[in-house]
Amino acid sequence: MLTIIGVMGPGEGASETDRRLAYELGRAIAREKWVTLCGGRNSGVMEAVTRGAKEAGGLTIGILPGQDTRDASPYLDLAIVTGIGNARNSINILSSHVVVACGMGKGTASEVALALKAKKPVILLDAPKTAIEFFRELDARRVSIAAGVEEAMELCRDLTRPSEPGA
Amino acid sequence: MLTIIGVMGPGEGASETDRRLAYELGRAIAREKWVTLCGGRNSGVMEAVTRGAKEAGGLTIGILPGQDTRDASPYLDLAIVTGIGNARNSINILSSHVVVACGMGKGTASEVALALKAKKPVILLDAPKTAIEFFRELDARRVSIAAGVEEAMELCRDLTRPSEPGA
Amino acid sequence: MLTIIGVMGPGEGASETDRRLAYELGRAIAREKWVTLCGGRNSGVMEAVTRGAKEAGGLTIGILPGQDTRDASPYLDLAIVTGIGNARNSINILSSHVVVACGMGKGTASEVALALKAKKPVILLDAPKTAIEFFRELDARRVSIAAGVEEAMELCRDLTRPSEPGA
Amino acid sequence: MLTIIGVMGPGEGASETDRRLAYELGRAIAREKWVTLCGGRNSGVMEAVTRGAKEAGGLTIGILPGQDTRDASPYLDLAIVTGIGNARNSINILSSHVVVACGMGKGTASEVALALKAKKPVILLDAPKTAIEFFRELDARRVSIAAGVEEAMELCRDLTRPSEPGA
Repeated sequence: MLTIIGVMGPGEGASETDRRLAYELGRAIAREKWVTLCGGRNSGVMEAVTRGAKEAGGLTIGILPGQDTRDASPYLDLAIVTGIGNARNSINILSSHVVVACGMGKGTASEVALALKAKKPVILLDAPKTAIEFFRELDARRVSIAAGVEEAMELCRDLTRPSEPGA
Repeated sequence: MLTIIGVMGPGEGASETDRRLAYELGRAIAREKWVTLCGGRNSGVMEAVTRGAKEAGGLTIGILPGQDTRDASPYLDLAIVTGIGNARNSINILSSHVVVACGMGKGTASEVALALKAKKPVILLDAPKTAIEFFRELDARRVSIAAGVEEAMELCRDLTRPSEPGA
Repeated sequence: MLTIIGVMGPGEGASETDRRLAYELGRAIAREKWVTLCGGRNSGVMEAVTRGAKEAGGLTIGILPGQDTRDASPYLDLAIVTGIGNARNSINILSSHVVVACGMGKGTASEVALALKAKKPVILLDAPKTAIEFFRELDARRVSIAAGVEEAMELCRDLTRPSEPGA
Repeated sequence: MLTIIGVMGPGEGASETDRRLAYELGRAIAREKWVTLCGGRNSGVMEAVTRGAKEAGGLTIGILPGQDTRDASPYLDLAIVTGIGNARNSINILSSHVVVACGMGKGTASEVALALKAKKPVILLDAPKTAIEFFRELDARRVSIAAGVEEAMELCRDLTRPSEPGA
């Protein structure tokens, strides 16, 4: 099975920084030969991360909330059309080996919380201080803070490394 | 249609205070002739709020994550068996006229975030300071803080009152 | 917990007979003090069965596919707003003690099939011959055929009766 | 976006013929450079079709009902972990450009019905006579019958061909 990195982040509400980091994340994920998964829409972090991944030759999957692909990112290889609205946020995180939150918004917050509930490792990138404090209090062990894309990728490498025998 | 107050809160991780407040909330919701909706399990805030509501003669609905009623609160009148796991958190909040978060945990955090995303009013009761700061930053307009059950009920009354013509 | 009878059937595609039988079913379910559950929309069997149940003083629940109550039957007491589209068909049948299919359509067929998969008893009323033959071949033991509302209610009474000790 | 062919069919209840046809279907889908999507479990048609597709160098996606990959087919490239049980059947068909039902069972029947509801083309392969008659009556226009894998593939080619201008 291929390793899937889920990148969550705001759509319409994404900042310029969120988009730039998401684009770089997508490129970096593709260079590791990992699959980029996101909420799939043609907006904000979803569009930026899939654009980055495609440009670097990676495979991209979008887990779309709607009933068709009308609002899909043009950079998706695979559109999973759920038709279940934001209930699909739970699928985003269950399907990811590591969850990277790039920026923060309401949907992103729900994904980080659901990820922690499902015992998935979460990396916060470009998160506001209140988010860092809240989520670290919820689950200090599973929440990592990355200062930039390189540090996020280093954490992903650690988190997806098969455990050594005897470790 | 009946007015539904959704009470979200931790299951196994609920504190004694969370449970006591949830029980009192259930009683108060029932006295207003509102319906109490929750995640439906036989644990923590879910069990306490439905027990309170039942004891005060109210109607209770549980939106269960599993495929059957095995782990349902014994105080449910109506068990909605979703079989969709924590994706049902989205249904909890979409079905509630007002969302009251009693205590805080990972699932509760996802519900508050999804409620704000769906533009539902949220009342935080017994929430830690980090949660208050985070969620108010996400959406100051829709997040209210209640100091106790009475204040939460006062907010619910305001939020469910039909808008006056010309208002 | 209250006993829930799920009545499934076509929306816009319902025949006059489907609607009339659904209305009578709703009345009969209410007279037994059971709860009427359906897909909740303001159309076809969903509207007719909830109208019948309300007129006879029963409690009605609709499991709505959309994100709000805009297309809800006006005869619902409780609107469960799922936002998950037709994936909610699975919730309809998991939440019902007995599933009655009144008429037949694409959505109804999916509900009968999911009900049998979940080992729920199904009563077919006003079903075409091809549906009867197909579903009986899928699971002869769990599919009953009712010639009319009275026979459907008799089957519901049998299927919801607590098993006797030693039986 | 890549073209996705969804192959639905029984798990534990699959016949030897169902499995053999599913395996051949998987091989044929891979040779066309299409993606094979299925319910993802390590059983029946799901396992056979992914095995065939992998052996022929194709890409495989499984839309798993559970909360993890424990019962996933070993021939999946991409495991979409939904955690929503059989409600995921709706995602299977919404994500597929063409739905091929290989054999028939309760879950498969729900998928064919949901596919027709969502206006997706459905190809029935190795379906019993009662299923053919029932589904053709539900929607004669969208249901095709294939006598074998070759005919199923010919139908898939027709159904995925971009419409010609002026056609």
